Amino acid sequence: MGRLEAFSDGVIAVILTIMVLELHAPPSATLEGLREVLLPLFLYALSFIIVASMWVHHHGLLKAAKKTSPRLLWSNNNLLFWMSLIPFATATVGKYPRDPWPVAAYGMVFLLTSLSFWILQTVLARHVGDAGPTETLGKVRFQSMFSVVSYAVAMVAAFVFPPVSYVLFAAIALSYTVPPLVFNKEMVD
Amino acid sequence: MGRLEAFSDGVIAVILTIMVLELHAPPSATLEGLREVLLPLFLYALSFIIVASMWVHHHGLLKAAKKTSPRLLWSNNNLLFWMSLIPFATATVGKYPRDPWPVAAYGMVFLLTSLSFWILQTVLARHVGDAGPTETLGKVRFQSMFSVVSYAVAMVAAFVFPPVSYVLFAAIALSYTVPPLVFNKEMVD
Amino acid sequence: MGRLEAFSDGVIAVILTIMVLELHAPPSATLEGLREVLLPLFLYALSFIIVASMWVHHHGLLKAAKKTSPRLLWSNNNLLFWMSLIPFATATVGKYPRDPWPVAAYGMVFLLTSLSFWILQTVLARHVGDAGPTETLGKVRFQSMFSVVSYAVAMVAAFVFPPVSYVLFAAIALSYTVPPLVFNKEMVD
Amino acid sequence: MGRLEAFSDGVIAVILTIMVLELHAPPSATLEGLREVLLPLFLYALSFIIVASMWVHHHGLLKAAKKTSPRLLWSNNNLLFWMSLIPFATATVGKYPRDPWPVAAYGMVFLLTSLSFWILQTVLARHVGDAGPTETLGKVRFQSMFSVVSYAVAMVAAFVFPPVSYVLFAAIALSYTVPPLVFNKEMVD
Repeated sequence: MGRLEAFSDGVIAVILTIMVLELHAPPSATLEGLREVLLPLFLYALSFIIVASMWVHHHGLLKAAKKTSPRLLWSNNNLLFWMSLIPFATATVGKYPRDPWPVAAYGMVFLLTSLSFWILQTVLARHVGDAGPTETLGKVRFQSMFSVVSYAVAMVAAFVFPPVSYVLFAAIALSYTVPPLVFNKEMVD
Repeated sequence: MGRLEAFSDGVIAVILTIMVLELHAPPSATLEGLREVLLPLFLYALSFIIVASMWVHHHGLLKAAKKTSPRLLWSNNNLLFWMSLIPFATATVGKYPRDPWPVAAYGMVFLLTSLSFWILQTVLARHVGDAGPTETLGKVRFQSMFSVVSYAVAMVAAFVFPPVSYVLFAAIALSYTVPPLVFNKEMVD
Repeated sequence: MGRLEAFSDGVIAVILTIMVLELHAPPSATLEGLREVLLPLFLYALSFIIVASMWVHHHGLLKAAKKTSPRLLWSNNNLLFWMSLIPFATATVGKYPRDPWPVAAYGMVFLLTSLSFWILQTVLARHVGDAGPTETLGKVRFQSMFSVVSYAVAMVAAFVFPPVSYVLFAAIALSYTVPPLVFNKEMVD
Repeated sequence: MGRLEAFSDGVIAVILTIMVLELHAPPSATLEGLREVLLPLFLYALSFIIVASMWVHHHGLLKAAKKTSPRLLWSNNNLLFWMSLIPFATATVGKYPRDPWPVAAYGMVFLLTSLSFWILQTVLARHVGDAGPTETLGKVRFQSMFSVVSYAVAMVAAFVFPPVSYVLFAAIALSYTVPPLVFNKEMVD
């Protein structure tokens, strides 16, 4: 399991960091120039918080399993694939922050990432069996599915009024950092 | 061995992730604009699956060896070199997805990566000697050589009709994720 | 704790290295062309030294804690967030090295990074309690707050005469590498 | 020592891999277009071999030391700084492959990297004292100094006839992969 965790950590660390390469130096050196970077910066911060929370959750997840299997490896690879699209989705929405399709696509990538988390948790639940912390896994799976639904709502909102989507994305991101809601004692190191 | 594995994992994690930097934000914010990203996205997914399977295979491989040697280190470096060209080949074919030469070059990089896997497996087989899982290594080497041939066929197909190459690449990529074909119990953690 | 340290190291290693991607090949192949790269190179070196010292300090910090907690994880994520903006700030100041706002923004990112260090150290001090090296942590926290003030001074100086800010940044960076000032025996491996 | 090694490995893994981002898709999809990428590809391969050999050497080096010290940490950070400039130097020489100054600058970065290796080895020799493999370290330091001189010769050659420098760079790179010359049994895992 050690190498699977280490590899996932490596991929997530690179995802978290290369997003910053999509932030471009402002067009002018004035305060106005710097202000133009504020919206991309806000979106970067949002993606950073979401990816960082995913790491926090992933951190505890794999510890539950004692053995790897092809199914587990590929559920994890599937999750990493959707996570790896986050820098691309962030760059796209940063370029067109007021248009419905890019905002919806941004939500879509997060929706698919949450769904992949749910799949990985379901595969893990089978691996753990009765011996493991199934109750915790159940709670965690519920949270993943709740995220899927929240992102779907944010996607629909993008076609009504994009700022509503941003408020929803921020609310979801912040909810990930509230310990009693999403943190399980058994999941911490 | 630990540090060789960790270093390879680090390199593969970066390769897997920086590929996404070659995906550029669509030219417009409409659904049509997003659609233009679909082919590069498909190619990215293809490369992601292939690199991820290489990691899965590499994961088990080095465990077979108990000691490093200059020959083993450089067989591994040779493999990492060809793997490191995958983001470049993916960007090139993403730019010219309908031209034979870039499609063939894309296949060429995978062919050379598979060949390097075969070389590494051959070097490992000598290291392992009688004590190790030689039967498994033999099966794995056969699969590598089979990949080399498959990529050669896909390369030739690029000059006839590029879509055939894509179907072949996808078939090869998916075959890597089918457990009974390419996964060996001894190779799993 | 091992995985938290490893993840932080991964993120810091990527931050340290992707900064170099913001250095662009000179506009001409003459000695004059290469000379134009000198100021961005100097800024890169400055950021490299500061990020490297942050790693050196972070290296010892987390060892003090025996257990993770949501608060500790998020104090660490907060630090990594501000550190991840360093490549962006370095690219911006490298593009407009003689304008006050970009120089001040560069200092701002370092100020917020030092402040985040202070927060992490404060959270850690509570975790460690009486059992740990509280005296060392106290000294380290004083140094972080001293950095915050120094960066604030350098920010103000940017509006008077930017070169003064550079001298201050260089002085702060070099002070981080002086062992008796910032290195604590208990913090070394 | 574990974390210092792991951090260095992380930085070197990223350096090794981000170099490929400087390889740009060819200007046309013809065989001629792909041919234009051959010289940058050759330079990339050269840098890859040199960075990979540096990893191989670094791999064994730090094992000799039992304790870290500020001096050791900063000798290592100094080495990583010069190594981190290799992607930048490779991109510059790839843009102007026939001009003396960029070729000389490329050699300069390798010269300074080899010099930093020599410094790190000198610092390590003091740490190891009588107990360690001082003979091996002496041999390794001689090789580093020999590299410094070789790169200096290649730099001078750039002003006479750049292709001579390339032949010299390739000869140095290949010499690093010849086991009896540069590999010490004590340095292998």
